[in-house]
Amino acid sequence: MKKVTVAVALRESILDPQGVAVKGGLVQLGFAGVEEVRIGKRIELLVADETTDAMIHEMCQKLLVNTVMEDYRFDVEEVTTA
Amino acid sequence: MKKVTVAVALRESILDPQGVAVKGGLVQLGFAGVEEVRIGKRIELLVADETTDAMIHEMCQKLLVNTVMEDYRFDVEEVTTA
Repeated sequence: MKKVTVAVALRESILDPQGVAVKGGLVQLGFAGVEEVRIGKRIELLVADETTDAMIHEMCQKLLVNTVMEDYRFDVEEVTTA
Repeated sequence: MKKVTVAVALRESILDPQGVAVKGGLVQLGFAGVEEVRIGKRIELLVADETTDAMIHEMCQKLLVNTVMEDYRFDVEEVTTA
């Protein structure tokens, strides 16, 4: 099996209201020095060995990622399942 | 500045309905070999150099993570901002 970890984030040029809200919360809790917060998705897929990078890109572009507003990248690890 | 990347995921023992739904979607789109899907959050923080690991743990436990249902881990990178 392969473990694919996809990191999805809003494009840099797009305002992240969730991140702005969390930053405000951290500052209110007294955490000084928080310059910026950006929130994204982290998707873990356990897939068959035959799954190619091209198939993973296709999964991202067809379902996992809103390619209009989001960027993504992924890492692939071989895993041995018991 | 430091760039902190926090990976937040539902505890393994907890059912991930979002992941189940996405897996169903991928299978419907014809992607065979998808064994499991788990969806989590990926939080990027840009913080001052003085921010310690203990402070980052405190940010996670106080605001960023639901410690009842979620696990987290984070990586810290030095970044030079222009």
